[in-house]
Amino acid sequence: MNIGLDMMGGDFAPLEAVKGLQLYLSDNIRTAQLYCIGDETLVKPLLEEHRVTSPNLHLVHAPEVIGYHEHPTKALKEKQRSSIAIGFHMLATGKIDAFISAGNTGAMLVGAMFSIKAVEGVMRPTISTIVPKINGGTGVLVDVGLNADCKPEQLNQFALLGSLYAQYILNINNPKVGLMNVGEEEGKGNILTQATYPLLKENTQINFIGNIEGRDLFNDKADVIVCDGFTGNIVLKLAESVYDITQQRGYGNDAYFTRFHYENYGGTPVLGVAKPVIIGHGISNDKAFRNMIDVAEKMIESDLCGKIADKFKS
Amino acid sequence: MNIGLDMMGGDFAPLEAVKGLQLYLSDNIRTAQLYCIGDETLVKPLLEEHRVTSPNLHLVHAPEVIGYHEHPTKALKEKQRSSIAIGFHMLATGKIDAFISAGNTGAMLVGAMFSIKAVEGVMRPTISTIVPKINGGTGVLVDVGLNADCKPEQLNQFALLGSLYAQYILNINNPKVGLMNVGEEEGKGNILTQATYPLLKENTQINFIGNIEGRDLFNDKADVIVCDGFTGNIVLKLAESVYDITQQRGYGNDAYFTRFHYENYGGTPVLGVAKPVIIGHGISNDKAFRNMIDVAEKMIESDLCGKIADKFKS
Repeated sequence: MNIGLDMMGGDFAPLEAVKGLQLYLSDNIRTAQLYCIGDETLVKPLLEEHRVTSPNLHLVHAPEVIGYHEHPTKALKEKQRSSIAIGFHMLATGKIDAFISAGNTGAMLVGAMFSIKAVEGVMRPTISTIVPKINGGTGVLVDVGLNADCKPEQLNQFALLGSLYAQYILNINNPKVGLMNVGEEEGKGNILTQATYPLLKENTQINFIGNIEGRDLFNDKADVIVCDGFTGNIVLKLAESVYDITQQRGYGNDAYFTRFHYENYGGTPVLGVAKPVIIGHGISNDKAFRNMIDVAEKMIESDLCGKIADKFKS
Repeated sequence: MNIGLDMMGGDFAPLEAVKGLQLYLSDNIRTAQLYCIGDETLVKPLLEEHRVTSPNLHLVHAPEVIGYHEHPTKALKEKQRSSIAIGFHMLATGKIDAFISAGNTGAMLVGAMFSIKAVEGVMRPTISTIVPKINGGTGVLVDVGLNADCKPEQLNQFALLGSLYAQYILNINNPKVGLMNVGEEEGKGNILTQATYPLLKENTQINFIGNIEGRDLFNDKADVIVCDGFTGNIVLKLAESVYDITQQRGYGNDAYFTRFHYENYGGTPVLGVAKPVIIGHGISNDKAFRNMIDVAEKMIESDLCGKIADKFKS
């Protein structure tokens, strides 16, 4: 398996990516071939300095970088020698099986949707986040911001995409799907959720358990929590701020709240595109990069994209 | 000033309402006349047992009760001798200046909108919640569930209603209004927030500071946080669950998280109706009832409803 890693993405690039590789390689017996895409004048000395060496490590020179504030489509077009453009080119042509970056999120999404394209039958790809459950389990919240306005049919697809992610990446058997709503009873909600409920109820490819409420995000009611990207983005950022507040209040060592730390998420795969694409947080540190490589491995091993394609065919 | 209190509303009625009155009366020199509306065969013995006596206390007999699961409109129509129906009748006819209940929320909303009616110019009344800020201050989140689907013009009105509440009840001078959104820049958001932003920007009656994100709920960026009722309800319930989790994790005495406890909110006024109506949490305890009476006093003293009417006239 071949994994491409954008060395130039993230606020602390390329240092944290280098340290992430080091963590990854030191952890276990690793068999993936890792393609480190970035400016070799910066990356090579750092790899040497940190003694990150492995026959599985391959440096791919990319002299350009897409900055955080660049316009995604324009930058991808104009900076064809950037790490993100080269990464997508390698993914599209099969030189790598997964591409990871903590760089410009917009450029990653545009690259995923236009150079890799959506799985046939998927109306809109989506991004999710992992939700630490109070009992120790893990849930998936989907969508968390890629699709601010959604149609009921899209939410119905997110439910399936999230279920497959929960099943194959988080190893949750027959994941329970809940619709994020303002009340438990069928018929509650805004126009969108009222129209989505019957679709989820009739969808035999998922295990729909009904509406859930804001208070159920962290409990066991649902493994996959479906909402539009506007709601999901606000919920995600609110949850992140709760983590920050627990840190400020001195509960930094709390075993539950610690699980909220972004570094444990291992990045956000773009669900519904034909090949594995993983987007990291801008502030990604070494542990976050290591975890993103792990998620990429799992996505390749489980052939999640193939499983998604199969389900959307039927 | 005359305040009506539904003695039969809340999970622990009428006991907690009685104890709330006791707290209220013991606290300070109180001048409000309190009309205790409820079944006198239940309320009177409890008042005697807890030695809650005052020349300002007046028992109003209401032999019927509207239960939690009754259909609001139907129950209000059929149970005209219920505490909620009598309370609204007294409010509509001027016998009381404010009405408080922790009973059936739907019946309270229907009563507020149909027997008291919206202030002229207000498209849709709204309900808000108080948000404890990490720095010690207090914010207002509006709407939190009355209006699941909103138009931009409604959000623009919620901004003004929330600002007046923040100013006159929370004593926040020139409250900063933020639009809950998925990004800070103008132009970000779903169709609703994109269309709302310019209205807020042009609204000279409010102090609009731009978009805020989920992570800004508890910080100082905005005093009044505007969103549709679907989003607000999910955010509110999520925040409530965070409080529960901090309790479970053993941080029950944390000075910040303690402020999340519903009992400190003092109920939710229905903003935009012509007279003060305050809805309490079903689990309201004595402190919650005391605080609701306090909020009613403030609403009457400041003539919040009159101030709202003035602003919506102009």
